[in-house]
Amino acid sequence: MLESTIAAIRPLDDAAMAAARELHGRLTKPAGSLGALEELSVRLAGLAGACPPPLPERAAVAIFAGDHGVHAQGVSPWPQEVTAQMIANFLAGGAVVNAFARQAGAAVTVVDVGVATPIPTAGTEPLDPAGGAVLDPAGSARVLDPAVPRLVDANVRPGTADLTVTAALTRDEARAAVETGVRVADELIDAGAGILLTGDMGIGNTTPAAALIAAFTGADPAAATGRGTGVDDATYQRKVDVVRAALERHRPDPTDPLGVLATVGGLEHAALAGLILGAAARRVPVLLDGVIAGSAALAAAAFAPDAVGAMVAGHRSAEPGATLALRKLGLDALIDLGLRLGEGTGALLALPVVTGAVRVLHEVATFDSAGVAEK
Amino acid sequence: MLESTIAAIRPLDDAAMAAARELHGRLTKPAGSLGALEELSVRLAGLAGACPPPLPERAAVAIFAGDHGVHAQGVSPWPQEVTAQMIANFLAGGAVVNAFARQAGAAVTVVDVGVATPIPTAGTEPLDPAGGAVLDPAGSARVLDPAVPRLVDANVRPGTADLTVTAALTRDEARAAVETGVRVADELIDAGAGILLTGDMGIGNTTPAAALIAAFTGADPAAATGRGTGVDDATYQRKVDVVRAALERHRPDPTDPLGVLATVGGLEHAALAGLILGAAARRVPVLLDGVIAGSAALAAAAFAPDAVGAMVAGHRSAEPGATLALRKLGLDALIDLGLRLGEGTGALLALPVVTGAVRVLHEVATFDSAGVAEK
Repeated sequence: MLESTIAAIRPLDDAAMAAARELHGRLTKPAGSLGALEELSVRLAGLAGACPPPLPERAAVAIFAGDHGVHAQGVSPWPQEVTAQMIANFLAGGAVVNAFARQAGAAVTVVDVGVATPIPTAGTEPLDPAGGAVLDPAGSARVLDPAVPRLVDANVRPGTADLTVTAALTRDEARAAVETGVRVADELIDAGAGILLTGDMGIGNTTPAAALIAAFTGADPAAATGRGTGVDDATYQRKVDVVRAALERHRPDPTDPLGVLATVGGLEHAALAGLILGAAARRVPVLLDGVIAGSAALAAAAFAPDAVGAMVAGHRSAEPGATLALRKLGLDALIDLGLRLGEGTGALLALPVVTGAVRVLHEVATFDSAGVAEK
Repeated sequence: MLESTIAAIRPLDDAAMAAARELHGRLTKPAGSLGALEELSVRLAGLAGACPPPLPERAAVAIFAGDHGVHAQGVSPWPQEVTAQMIANFLAGGAVVNAFARQAGAAVTVVDVGVATPIPTAGTEPLDPAGGAVLDPAGSARVLDPAVPRLVDANVRPGTADLTVTAALTRDEARAAVETGVRVADELIDAGAGILLTGDMGIGNTTPAAALIAAFTGADPAAATGRGTGVDDATYQRKVDVVRAALERHRPDPTDPLGVLATVGGLEHAALAGLILGAAARRVPVLLDGVIAGSAALAAAAFAPDAVGAMVAGHRSAEPGATLALRKLGLDALIDLGLRLGEGTGALLALPVVTGAVRVLHEVATFDSAGVAEK
C-alpha cells in the first residue's frame, strides 16, 4: 500500500500553473504585489491540476502521538506521562492547538500511533469503541466536526525502543506507522478536507527529529539538535550526544527512508511522513507545522521527491533543525514568529494565509470586469 | 479635538502585563513556546489594562483614500482615476482587501478623505446621502457588517497640492484629515470593533509616504523610497529626486507632525495617523498594514509617543520605507511575505495571528486544571 501511494504521486501540472500566473496578471492589483502568496497560489493550482485550485474550506489537523524509548536517556525534563495527559487535554479542547483550530474552523484528529502510558479519558471522548475509525468511512460525518476533537486508536507499539541501544522500530513497525498516516490522510480527504495540517505530540520527540534531519540532510548532530521545550545546557548537550551516538550506531542510509525512520525515528514521525505522502497522492496540500513535521517531510521526500509539491511550510520553528529541513526541501515558511510548541499550532496560524492566497484567484475582480484602468 | 485625543493616550498598564506573563506560565505549553505571540498578548493586556485583554471578535478595516498633486511629476505609471475606480471596486467587493476581509469577517469602511476624480458608483452603494456617517452613531448597526463595504464621504480637498511646488496641504487641512481619522476610529469602536486595521488607496501615495518616513527617521530619500506598484528604473529615480526636492524645499521639523503631514504628506496618511491616535486613546489595538501605515504611524508617534503601545505591525511590506518605519517605532512585523499591495491586505492577513495570541489567554487550560504534569 505504501508503494502504490508513492507511485500515485506526480509532478505539478504546468498548464494549471501557467493559467494561474496568467490570471494573476489580470486581477485588480499591481503584478506581483501579493509577493509569496502569488507563487503559493500558483503552486496549489499545479497541485490540484486546476486554476483556480479548490478553496480549502474544510481543514483538518492530524496530531500523531507517540512515546520514545530515548526518554530514558534524560533528553527531556518532562515526564513521559505528559504525552497521554496532553492527549486528554486535546480531547477536552484545552490545548493551544484547540484554541487555534476553533478559530480556524479546523477539525482536530488525534491519532495514538504509539503512546506508552494509559490515556486519561475521564471527561473526554473515549477511544473509538470500534477501534477502526481510520478505516471506517461510515464515520465520516463526524470526522470534520471542528467542535469535537477525535481520538483514533492506531497504536503500533507503546513507544519506540531506545535508539541509542537498538533500532527505535522494526522495519515492519515503521511501515505500519507510515501506512497509518496514509490511511488517516485518505480518511480525512474522503470526509471532505481540502487541506491537511500536521500535528504531533510526544515527550522527547525532538530528539529523533534531530536524528532524522541529520540523517537526511547530512548536517552535524549539533546543528540539527535544538532545545525542544526549552532544556538546560546539560540536557541539550545530552541530546546532541544521543543523536550523534544513534547516527554512529545505525549509520542510516538516506536513500532508504523506511530504514532511517525505523532506526532513528519515531512512530509519530513515520505516521506524519505517511500523512504527507497520502495527501500528495490525492493532490491535496499538506500544511507543515514545525520540526517534527520537517523531519517527517524529509522522509516523505525521500520516498517520493514529487511529494514536496504538496507541502506548504506553515512556519519556521525556533528549532534549528526545522530550518535545515525546510532548506533541504526548498520551502520558505509562511510564518516566522519563534514558535516551538508543536501540536500543529504553527500550521494552524498559517492556514488563513494559504486560504487567502487561493481565495484571491476565486474572488478578485479583473481590471476588465471592474472597470479599472491599467497602467 | 486632536489635542484632547493626544492627552487621552496613556502608557501600557504594567499590572495587566505582569498578570498576563504569570498566566502564560501556567498554561499547558512549555514556557515561551509561543514566541512572539506571547509578548504580543502581554502587550495587548497592557493596552486594555486587563488580563486577559478582550478577544477582538469584531474587526474593522478603514481604507482612507486620497489623491496626490505630485502625481503630475510622473511618480506612478497608473492614471490618477484609478484611485476612484478602485474605490468602486472596494464597494463592489472585488478587490483583494474584500476577499481577505470576507475571510477574516472584518468590516470594510472606505473613507474618501481626498479623492480628486468622481467615484464611479454605478452598481455600488452610493455615497452616504446624509454625508455624515462618521458622526452619526445611529448608523452603527450597519457599520460593522462584513457583507457590505461602506463609503464615507469626508473629502477634505480633492487631492493634495504638488509637494515639489508648494506644501501638500495647509495645516488646517492636515488637521481636518487627522481629526477625520480620529472620528472614524471613534465610530468604529463605538459600533463594537475590538481592533482596527489600517487601509489605504491613493495612486502616487508611496511618494509622500517616503517623504514622511525620511522626515521622521532622518533616512536618506533614496533609502526611504521604493518602487511602489513596481515602477521602472527611470520612474524610481524620479521618485527619489521628488522626495529629495520636497524635503529640501520644506525642511519639515519631525517634532511638528502636523507640519510634516501638511508639507510632505497626504490626506490618507494624515487620516491614518488620526485613526491610530483615536484607537490608542480608546485603548484599542490598531493593526498596521504597509508603508503608508508605517509613515502614518511615525506621525502618530510624533504626536503621542505612547500611541506605539496600541500599534501592531501586521506585516513587513516589500517597500524599504516600511522597514525603516517599523525599526524607528521598535515594532516587529507578524507577517513577512513580500506583499506591497496596500489596501489593508497585509493587516488582514495578520489578523488571525493577533486574535490567536489573545485567544490563548482566554481558552487554554492550565496545567492544574487539565491534570498535566509540569517538568
